[in-house]
Amino acid sequence: MMTIIAERINMTRKAIREKVWERDADFIIAEVKAQEAAGATHIDINAGGDPAREIDDMIWLTEIISKATELPLSFDSPNAAALEAGLKICNRPGTIINSITLETDRVNNTLPLILKYNTGIIALTMDDSGMPETLEGRCKLIDEICNLMKKNNIALDRVYIDTLVRPLSTNPDQVKYTIESFRYLKNKYPECHTMCGLSNVSFGVPQRIHVNRAFFVLLLEAGLDGAIIDPRAEGMMGIMYAALALIGKDEFCMNYITAHEKGHL
Amino acid sequence: MMTIIAERINMTRKAIREKVWERDADFIIAEVKAQEAAGATHIDINAGGDPAREIDDMIWLTEIISKATELPLSFDSPNAAALEAGLKICNRPGTIINSITLETDRVNNTLPLILKYNTGIIALTMDDSGMPETLEGRCKLIDEICNLMKKNNIALDRVYIDTLVRPLSTNPDQVKYTIESFRYLKNKYPECHTMCGLSNVSFGVPQRIHVNRAFFVLLLEAGLDGAIIDPRAEGMMGIMYAALALIGKDEFCMNYITAHEKGHL
Repeated sequence: MMTIIAERINMTRKAIREKVWERDADFIIAEVKAQEAAGATHIDINAGGDPAREIDDMIWLTEIISKATELPLSFDSPNAAALEAGLKICNRPGTIINSITLETDRVNNTLPLILKYNTGIIALTMDDSGMPETLEGRCKLIDEICNLMKKNNIALDRVYIDTLVRPLSTNPDQVKYTIESFRYLKNKYPECHTMCGLSNVSFGVPQRIHVNRAFFVLLLEAGLDGAIIDPRAEGMMGIMYAALALIGKDEFCMNYITAHEKGHL
Repeated sequence: MMTIIAERINMTRKAIREKVWERDADFIIAEVKAQEAAGATHIDINAGGDPAREIDDMIWLTEIISKATELPLSFDSPNAAALEAGLKICNRPGTIINSITLETDRVNNTLPLILKYNTGIIALTMDDSGMPETLEGRCKLIDEICNLMKKNNIALDRVYIDTLVRPLSTNPDQVKYTIESFRYLKNKYPECHTMCGLSNVSFGVPQRIHVNRAFFVLLLEAGLDGAIIDPRAEGMMGIMYAALALIGKDEFCMNYITAHEKGHL
């Protein structure tokens, strides 16, 4: 079962930010319902339009979204106070904190919330020295994340590790390292989840959808089991179900055909 | 450089068959030009609408198509007389015979044409006992094809081996075997080309385009360097160029960007 975190409710996007500040609940609810209808398993909420207003906006968004859908939410902020504002309103089974890193401040601020609210967690392979350039660097941080979680009695099946892809246009080796790091992760920690906010890969190239689709297939082949995407983006859910069937994770294409019948392809 | 054999001029398709029998040259020429504009490197001609008329139809098609495009042609028939009818009219550099197998009759009939006309050749992993069920069976026939070509002094860089995918819906292991057989081929015979008529994979599932796209990515990752496709099918050329960039075969996305500028994506 793939985890599909729908990314459209993100106030770093101008169109969403304006609607939130207008308190246009109908618009936001329609976006949420459309993402759910497209096959999302989680709705991400990023209220980071303006640091001074983030907590208020997180509260407003969480209140209306949690009434509009029964899907679990993914609270998306580096700000622990904003995360907790959302968690206090809605912490249904499957809820995810997006995200923690190995940066000292983020560990100190976010780890207590995971423990207090017993949520899932997206962990990024970053530490106080930044994002690793190499495959080995990513694998080392995967180990450190898994050790941190185990030390805090957080079961690895609640953890989604994102090894952070960089744009293809700048350095193709980085794409390979991201793919290979997922292979390492699923091999060494099979109960831990892989996660990718995959659209970064196509930053700077035209017709990004082609690159996003192809990257999705390569990641799935390497063991991806969660993605932060817009499930309404043309052909993304279709290629996901197709790839899962082709790599032997959907016997007789039953999930593909069910997704087709539900209108998710 | 990928070999893209455009498959639309195929008289087993009713729409094409009728136009050919009406001798509607404008329709055929428009199809050919559209495929060329979409990024085809070869135009396949399959005149197999009616065995009794195949040679006449091959002659008519080859005459009009060879005037409409400068691309090399791919003559597509199990019938050596039909192949030779086309080759006599047009045998420009890059011409391909589609196809030979290891069946005794096909070797006896088609091998002399390759030698006489010095063409490229698509070879299918089939022999007198049919299509192999296993990976090992495909690899054995790959070896036999390469041995046959070497024995006849046909350079392997003129040979395109298609290991024949079966529909995903019937047996997903077959998909895996096809992919792995391409990996075997490129590893053991790096100068030989891989080729796949890939749309068979999606026979029997809805919204076949998703499966075709995802399969294309998996094949490219395994070393595919030629495909028989409809280059106008939505997103097929785009995902091909995207996958090539992602797997490190298109530095700085130059080919992707050029394809975008030419309108091939």
